[in-house]
Amino acid sequence: MKILKHSAEVGQWCEAYRKASLGLGFVPTLGGLHEGHLSLVRQARLECDRVLVSIYLNPSQFDSAADLEEYPADLEADLEACRQAGVDIVFLGEQAEFLPEGFQSRVFVEKLTESLCGAGRPGHFRGVCTVVTQLLHVVRPLRAYFGLKDFQQAKIISRMVADLFFDVELRLLPTVRSDDGLAISSRNRRLSTAERKEAVAIGEALQEAGELLAGGETRVAALKEQMTGVLEKAAGCRVEYVEVLAASSLEEFPGGEVSVSAEGVLLAVAAWFGEVRLIDNILFSPVSEVNEVNLETQGGS
Amino acid sequence: MKILKHSAEVGQWCEAYRKASLGLGFVPTLGGLHEGHLSLVRQARLECDRVLVSIYLNPSQFDSAADLEEYPADLEADLEACRQAGVDIVFLGEQAEFLPEGFQSRVFVEKLTESLCGAGRPGHFRGVCTVVTQLLHVVRPLRAYFGLKDFQQAKIISRMVADLFFDVELRLLPTVRSDDGLAISSRNRRLSTAERKEAVAIGEALQEAGELLAGGETRVAALKEQMTGVLEKAAGCRVEYVEVLAASSLEEFPGGEVSVSAEGVLLAVAAWFGEVRLIDNILFSPVSEVNEVNLETQGGS
Repeated sequence: MKILKHSAEVGQWCEAYRKASLGLGFVPTLGGLHEGHLSLVRQARLECDRVLVSIYLNPSQFDSAADLEEYPADLEADLEACRQAGVDIVFLGEQAEFLPEGFQSRVFVEKLTESLCGAGRPGHFRGVCTVVTQLLHVVRPLRAYFGLKDFQQAKIISRMVADLFFDVELRLLPTVRSDDGLAISSRNRRLSTAERKEAVAIGEALQEAGELLAGGETRVAALKEQMTGVLEKAAGCRVEYVEVLAASSLEEFPGGEVSVSAEGVLLAVAAWFGEVRLIDNILFSPVSEVNEVNLETQGGS
Repeated sequence: MKILKHSAEVGQWCEAYRKASLGLGFVPTLGGLHEGHLSLVRQARLECDRVLVSIYLNPSQFDSAADLEEYPADLEADLEACRQAGVDIVFLGEQAEFLPEGFQSRVFVEKLTESLCGAGRPGHFRGVCTVVTQLLHVVRPLRAYFGLKDFQQAKIISRMVADLFFDVELRLLPTVRSDDGLAISSRNRRLSTAERKEAVAIGEALQEAGELLAGGETRVAALKEQMTGVLEKAAGCRVEYVEVLAASSLEEFPGGEVSVSAEGVLLAVAAWFGEVRLIDNILFSPVSEVNEVNLETQGGS
């Protein structure tokens, strides 16, 4: 496994793969690798001839210095996980290259960033779109892998890739969950034992609202109420948002009535347990779509 | 000469060139081709194995529908000019592809867009950066050619290419002028005979201020006064801005005193004659740099 720090060197290796007609799969990460990331790496390993993982804790997508500092970083553990998963190249991005003095270029997506996490974290998705653009330009992979736990991020990057004619196939993969339904996240490590127990309420809230919806409930208010009710029963939980949105546009349903079209309904939660902000979502879709996931498959993954 | 409308088809041809190790030169235009564009095409023809010209009147970089409508468009003349200049592919971009319904991605550069034309045309450079990103993604040329008449645009695109790791060599070429010193522009065609005569004041203003600077004048106010004085003598001229800026940052000199460093001093003008807005600039540089131009070479081109 090659461990490379400089974009020029990474670019040369990726170009060599292309010249040899070796399909390259790319998994961008902030480090702190967990089962969610590794599920992306394994899928890339299955589908591609070579796999590159980037580890770059991009400061421009964090709202606060405190949040950035708290992000779990254990490079040795990350490298070992990559080795075991059969990664070919780990690209350790450095701020001196990605955000040098005088840097002033930005990439962003407008409407899709207005709701959900975009509303409360103004610069976050601009930071994400900008660094993903940089990484795609260096790596130029055949396929790039993102998790659907960050559903809004996946939608935004899909939009950006389509709008700006990036030459890459995006693979958006289901959320990985613990046995008790908590979505795997690097932030989970920061939960106390007590908080960790209570945090299962997020998955339960989504599951229960999903069942309501599957049972025919179309009133957005009733679905939100269901989620809020479950979350408020969890000790120490502060709800940031519960949302029921059209999955294609991430916009609210007109008249507060869900219409289950082929594009699906997104149920989404952001909630705090102590100092830790967790997000999760499920996509309720009448048809199971490629690269997306319906209630059943996501619940079981 | 191939004339192609669909990005997928253009992308395929460009990929075929790359596979055959044929270096591709790219000249993006809005149409209305003139000697300025053709100087770029000829340079690309000299330096590259294949030359692609795009013609796409990008609405997102125009501030007003009126300005967009007034833009001279004569497709047959443009195609004939390309044929004569030995262009291999003309890419006729279409709004349905570049700006489809639901489009919401944006690329921009922050500080460099704040002065000069960026100050008065808020969305202009965002439109430029976005469409240049799209075009570079479709064409992926070895070299892309831009004129220095749009000095700010050239700086912004250079910054964007460096910041975002675009894999392209930029070639920034000198302004082409009429014998009387007026910079060639598609907008010149909209000048009346009388206005056309008066418009030479722009080149004269820059030339005179450049001579002052070369003679040792370092007070920004005096240089601006010189330019304004020349322009105000021209009948019907309305000055939008006269500026004396550090060429590297496009920022004002601290204390109103020019310091002629290796990066150079930009003298720039935007002025209206009737309904026509014209811009021009000269770069005063103590050393003649590759891809840029000092007062003498620009004056004589």
